[in-house]
Amino acid sequence: MEKTYLELNPSQRILLGPGPSNCHPRVLKAMATPLVGHLDPDFLDVMNDVMELLREVFQTKNQLTIPMSGTGSAGMETTLVNLLEPGDKAVICINGLFGQRMADIVERCGAEVIKVEGEWGDIIKPEQVESALKGSGAKLVGIVHAETSTGVRQPLEDIAKIAHENGALLLADTVTSLGGLEVKIDEWGVDVAYSGTQKCLSCPPGLSPVTFNEKAREVIRNRKTKVQSWYLDLTMIENYWGQERFYHHTAPITMNYALREALRLIHEEGLQQRFARHQKNSDAFVAGIEAMGLSMLPPKEYRLPSLNAVKIPDGVDDVKVRKMLLDKFNIEIGGGLGVLKGKIWRVGLMGYSSSQRNVMLLLAALETALKAQGYSVKEGAGIAAAAEVYGL
Amino acid sequence: MEKTYLELNPSQRILLGPGPSNCHPRVLKAMATPLVGHLDPDFLDVMNDVMELLREVFQTKNQLTIPMSGTGSAGMETTLVNLLEPGDKAVICINGLFGQRMADIVERCGAEVIKVEGEWGDIIKPEQVESALKGSGAKLVGIVHAETSTGVRQPLEDIAKIAHENGALLLADTVTSLGGLEVKIDEWGVDVAYSGTQKCLSCPPGLSPVTFNEKAREVIRNRKTKVQSWYLDLTMIENYWGQERFYHHTAPITMNYALREALRLIHEEGLQQRFARHQKNSDAFVAGIEAMGLSMLPPKEYRLPSLNAVKIPDGVDDVKVRKMLLDKFNIEIGGGLGVLKGKIWRVGLMGYSSSQRNVMLLLAALETALKAQGYSVKEGAGIAAAAEVYGL
Repeated sequence: MEKTYLELNPSQRILLGPGPSNCHPRVLKAMATPLVGHLDPDFLDVMNDVMELLREVFQTKNQLTIPMSGTGSAGMETTLVNLLEPGDKAVICINGLFGQRMADIVERCGAEVIKVEGEWGDIIKPEQVESALKGSGAKLVGIVHAETSTGVRQPLEDIAKIAHENGALLLADTVTSLGGLEVKIDEWGVDVAYSGTQKCLSCPPGLSPVTFNEKAREVIRNRKTKVQSWYLDLTMIENYWGQERFYHHTAPITMNYALREALRLIHEEGLQQRFARHQKNSDAFVAGIEAMGLSMLPPKEYRLPSLNAVKIPDGVDDVKVRKMLLDKFNIEIGGGLGVLKGKIWRVGLMGYSSSQRNVMLLLAALETALKAQGYSVKEGAGIAAAAEVYGL
Repeated sequence: MEKTYLELNPSQRILLGPGPSNCHPRVLKAMATPLVGHLDPDFLDVMNDVMELLREVFQTKNQLTIPMSGTGSAGMETTLVNLLEPGDKAVICINGLFGQRMADIVERCGAEVIKVEGEWGDIIKPEQVESALKGSGAKLVGIVHAETSTGVRQPLEDIAKIAHENGALLLADTVTSLGGLEVKIDEWGVDVAYSGTQKCLSCPPGLSPVTFNEKAREVIRNRKTKVQSWYLDLTMIENYWGQERFYHHTAPITMNYALREALRLIHEEGLQQRFARHQKNSDAFVAGIEAMGLSMLPPKEYRLPSLNAVKIPDGVDDVKVRKMLLDKFNIEIGGGLGVLKGKIWRVGLMGYSSSQRNVMLLLAALETALKAQGYSVKEGAGIAAAAEVYGL
């Protein structure tokens, strides 16, 4: 018998994993807006708004601040393939999956990777970068500001200074920080950064905002070889997003509608209020987790409010807990990746998903799931601790 | 004064350019569906449906038939970067912009391009391919089935035979044909093809369906070097879309919702009915154009029903006509590209945009715009000729 394809009707999930986060209803509604062409004057207005509003969240004046037509990893690849040429060297900091991915892409560019390795769950220290970089002739230092695989927030200012003193650019992954915590591109001296839309910006996955300062653009202009990716070649794409509006590829119209609306929501909320909300919800969640007798992976001062990495207690089955959260509560949280598989849960409190309501429900659900696993948890302690943070 | 970002409210365009086409309201509505995670069991169902329904429109049994997370040009790049390695040779057929683009990407792969050139507006002849390919050792022949820049429909069967006799794969660009006219991947012997969502599939831009047969997958498996693009590396992506469901990148959830709905509409309409509708609307449009005293660029037997390339009459200002259509009728049509700039209009009659209503309105609007340009047109002749095709 022929299969029948029914109307789309997925479960109504609360997305508290490493991304995507839930979208505000206004973002979903924006996507139902009928299309215009990718060279339509009305779309050029949308593009202008998106660029302006992206500069706000990146806290930058960089002219070349645009959404690439792919998800976050396409943004990572964009920065590397445009900056690097065969034979170049790059210092790549690896303390999680996304640092590994950067190193992989650098090699695919025909460039040499100088690895700076750190523990998964801790930061990279400036002096590590300095000793790897000094005299190496590396063109850039690549580092992850918000490591989605470990929940670590990496300070960037000192490392930016070191990079500049050694004639290198600083390239930062801000996929899980942009729009949820401070990302001060200009003030910190970050030369190039990329992000994704489906994390703290609370927009569906599909675009990758990138920003390049003039020094980085000069590096691209001085290339001796063509960028190896046609699709991600900024020497052409900057003319589509710039004054000329030259056709390159057909931009994902609807995704740009969504991103504009998500950025408009951030503009209305205000960056500082938004960061405070993310921090408060993370504080409440962590207080709840610790009151329940569990602990967090990263040291307190380097924790991301957007991605909360909880150590899985001994004897508790990772997959069973996550399956119960999904099946009984419609809540998605993430498991660990790589060396942290089975060792941590990754709880995203990002954008629209970062709310008091979600924190309280998750703590209640987690207590229930842990008890179902036979894990001894002091009843109600998590909820009470979180309530206290909220002043309830 | 601070700029105010108002609610999105673009003009309500009738999209009759080279893409995007208009979306059916059900497709727009599908995009307002709340997100699930990219590894959610409910999303895995969506992925399965999308793969099955894509095989229907590609008329293939190819297991590896998936939407890449980028627009059509990302699909083009996907096929080339996965199949080619530095030092390989590829025969690329160039009779329009998209053949040029293929050649550009082949060079960026470090492979050698053997060009087969044809006139913009005509087909590539099998014997041209044969003489270029014979003894060359080329790994593939790249050719555009539906050249969006010229409106030419390229027959593929004979060229597939020639490719196979010479040990090469046939790679076809079906961006402007898939879902609007016959694309018989298996029957014609096309080994690899890519497409876009925003043309005859009538889905917003953002995904690029690709299909690879087993012979092509074997070529990828036998690579000696890594695929130069991490983001487009099928050796990893096939494990996300395959049984294993390994995380690679975060798929654009919403775009996949939209594609599923667009493919569901095609499934309901039926491929043959859909192709007949596209052909009928193109026939009516062309009859109208010719009755108005204008003519088409490609020879009759090689015209695409989806992309109708009309020669701009002498003395008529390309840009003024298109501006009048846009400003007074809210209709978008396309101008020429490359050597055809200012010489042709590109009228897309694709997917949901391919309707009797749109054809009649466009002919009326075009007559009005031509008269406003002082071009002598027999009043009402275009409309009458189209009406006759429709049996009105």
